[in-house]
Amino acid sequence: MIIETVDLYYLAIPQVRDIADGSQDALLVRVRSGGHTGWGECEASPLVSIANYVCPMSHANIKPVRDGVVGATIDAPDDIVDLSRQVAKTGLDIPQNDHTWSGIEMALWDLLGRQMGQPVYKLLGCDKAYPKTPYASQLFGDTPQQTLAKAQASRQQGYRAVKFGWGPFGRKSVRDDSDQLTAAREGLGDDAILLVDAGTAWIDDVDAAAARLDALAQAKATWLEEPFISEALQAYGQLARISAPVKIAGGEAAQNFHMAKQLIDYGGIGYVQIDAGRVGGIHPARRVAQYANSKGVTFVNHTFTTHLQLSASIQPFADIQDASLCEYPVEPASLAAELSDDQVPVGSDGQVRLPDAPGLGVIPNAAAIRKYLVDTQIKVCGTVLYTTPDVNDL
Amino acid sequence: MIIETVDLYYLAIPQVRDIADGSQDALLVRVRSGGHTGWGECEASPLVSIANYVCPMSHANIKPVRDGVVGATIDAPDDIVDLSRQVAKTGLDIPQNDHTWSGIEMALWDLLGRQMGQPVYKLLGCDKAYPKTPYASQLFGDTPQQTLAKAQASRQQGYRAVKFGWGPFGRKSVRDDSDQLTAAREGLGDDAILLVDAGTAWIDDVDAAAARLDALAQAKATWLEEPFISEALQAYGQLARISAPVKIAGGEAAQNFHMAKQLIDYGGIGYVQIDAGRVGGIHPARRVAQYANSKGVTFVNHTFTTHLQLSASIQPFADIQDASLCEYPVEPASLAAELSDDQVPVGSDGQVRLPDAPGLGVIPNAAAIRKYLVDTQIKVCGTVLYTTPDVNDL
Repeated sequence: MIIETVDLYYLAIPQVRDIADGSQDALLVRVRSGGHTGWGECEASPLVSIANYVCPMSHANIKPVRDGVVGATIDAPDDIVDLSRQVAKTGLDIPQNDHTWSGIEMALWDLLGRQMGQPVYKLLGCDKAYPKTPYASQLFGDTPQQTLAKAQASRQQGYRAVKFGWGPFGRKSVRDDSDQLTAAREGLGDDAILLVDAGTAWIDDVDAAAARLDALAQAKATWLEEPFISEALQAYGQLARISAPVKIAGGEAAQNFHMAKQLIDYGGIGYVQIDAGRVGGIHPARRVAQYANSKGVTFVNHTFTTHLQLSASIQPFADIQDASLCEYPVEPASLAAELSDDQVPVGSDGQVRLPDAPGLGVIPNAAAIRKYLVDTQIKVCGTVLYTTPDVNDL
Repeated sequence: MIIETVDLYYLAIPQVRDIADGSQDALLVRVRSGGHTGWGECEASPLVSIANYVCPMSHANIKPVRDGVVGATIDAPDDIVDLSRQVAKTGLDIPQNDHTWSGIEMALWDLLGRQMGQPVYKLLGCDKAYPKTPYASQLFGDTPQQTLAKAQASRQQGYRAVKFGWGPFGRKSVRDDSDQLTAAREGLGDDAILLVDAGTAWIDDVDAAAARLDALAQAKATWLEEPFISEALQAYGQLARISAPVKIAGGEAAQNFHMAKQLIDYGGIGYVQIDAGRVGGIHPARRVAQYANSKGVTFVNHTFTTHLQLSASIQPFADIQDASLCEYPVEPASLAAELSDDQVPVGSDGQVRLPDAPGLGVIPNAAAIRKYLVDTQIKVCGTVLYTTPDVNDL
């Protein structure tokens, strides 16, 4: 198949709020070839990645992503891997490049799966897709009382694992954080899995993170996620050596296989969390899953947006039975909720299963795209490099 | 001083060529406050960084760079550091953020230096600015004969240190690379310093890099630069353990202090090469210089563009006498050559000295900006978020 068209759709809710909710906008990607269509999604600033897709060449290592894609031939999984390598090379000096490429790579897997009549995980070499235990991923309440209520609600909805993150956590005193953790555990009851996300609050300050370890252990938190920015490897390593019984989790910021590998090799993390919409797509996520498994580190998807992203981020570790948790967005903005009729639902047994369908199994609704589309235009030297695609073509 | 205006100027030569020459375009930044003006330059894809400067908020960790800047108060060096921390936080999920911020941060130091009547290195706490030995930084010739001629020409121009990089090196056979190295050494004569830049040719393949070590040692190369992509820390570490007498150099891709620190902590590099236009500006570069010095690693600037960049990238290690080499661009495109009358010249003693002038000491020419300005517009939801600044205001 020769890639005939690539279209980028910038979607957003009308009033984006200043909270750590990544589901308020989206950059959708559609690829078409030979009567087939594939969909993907970048977990990225839409405008910055659109600019990256069309930017004029600066030199041999700053070329627009689109240069290598339209007209490329994709007949087998290796063709996607080869194209990824090429795009990484021509975009070596554009830090945004992996975020932009992620959604396109994802769409290419979806396209290939549909053309071959296979789910993506089979194309990745997985014999089987094991069900995963979803953890309800949500923001901390502004107060411990709100967090307690959110925890109770998640249990009532049937979740056996819950993650709280961001909000006030890590931004106030140790005592405040301790109160939040106590409230979370109280709301969940004794038998649920509690996961905690510090959202890089302490940047690289090991002492600040260590000061919370007692409270985390008392609340029986399974992991402490992103205590630091992802590049602070030495801080990760130091904290991991003293954090037991709490494990350290991280990796959502990884833009390629190597950034995730570093956190495993030097950061001492127990869980590696990968977003297929950031790490360069589905294949690098698969590489991380296999590397983590070989090192006794548990892979988890990072997903806070749509079910298209959710499917794409679970495919890479479908066959790793021990990696049994999966992040499951439970408070998506309307855009993410309405984007597709196809869902990756929680079954009656409380488990999540990938769609038994070709590709990623999740097709965005034309109506949702039309509703949330953000009209965008980029013009350089009088030439329109990007304009919002025609909605009549959906 | 309250930052009154920030202007981004996208400049490019008319025909950008597909070679590894980063001086073919530029993203200049001008900041103004209280009658003073500061200039900086992002070493970045101009269009991608412009989009990053104005992009609509996606959530709490994807906000436009400009949000925090216009209206901020800068009265002392710490104010710049504080603002950098704030911008890093609100742009946490925009990989392009550091590239974009770098040029603004640089302009803020220039502004503060001009307002205080001090060169930037003094604001950084350097008592003294030692002269540096420039190495003539250039691309390998397409053939060994061309490389030999380029080496001879550099010696005739008085350079005692020369770097060859990119071009065919690392892209062909070990024998081809060996021939290039022999030619380079022959052209330089026995007593000059030869530096070699592989331009990430081997990605993370230690064996491919190791196969060149004998030829590098025979050519008495001082360092092998960027054998791998900067995230391949384990590969760097493995190569560094077997590379003596040749040292490994790297770091130009570092987008923050921590990425450079990793290469020192785990990558075993002997030279750390920092571009102030990428690493988040002048202050993070200073942090790397001090950390490297404490670890016995030699700091070198990475500069392949203008003399504004050159000044900005030397200021951070002005007072480190042992870090005596400095990268010096010798084949700039016309844009970089014409950008300023102010230069950071090679003196009659063959040494480079920072301008003894307030700020960075290099003011871009209005005529050059007008000549190379690239007309650019970004529009979202009918609102023009960016348009090329008015040249009558220069």
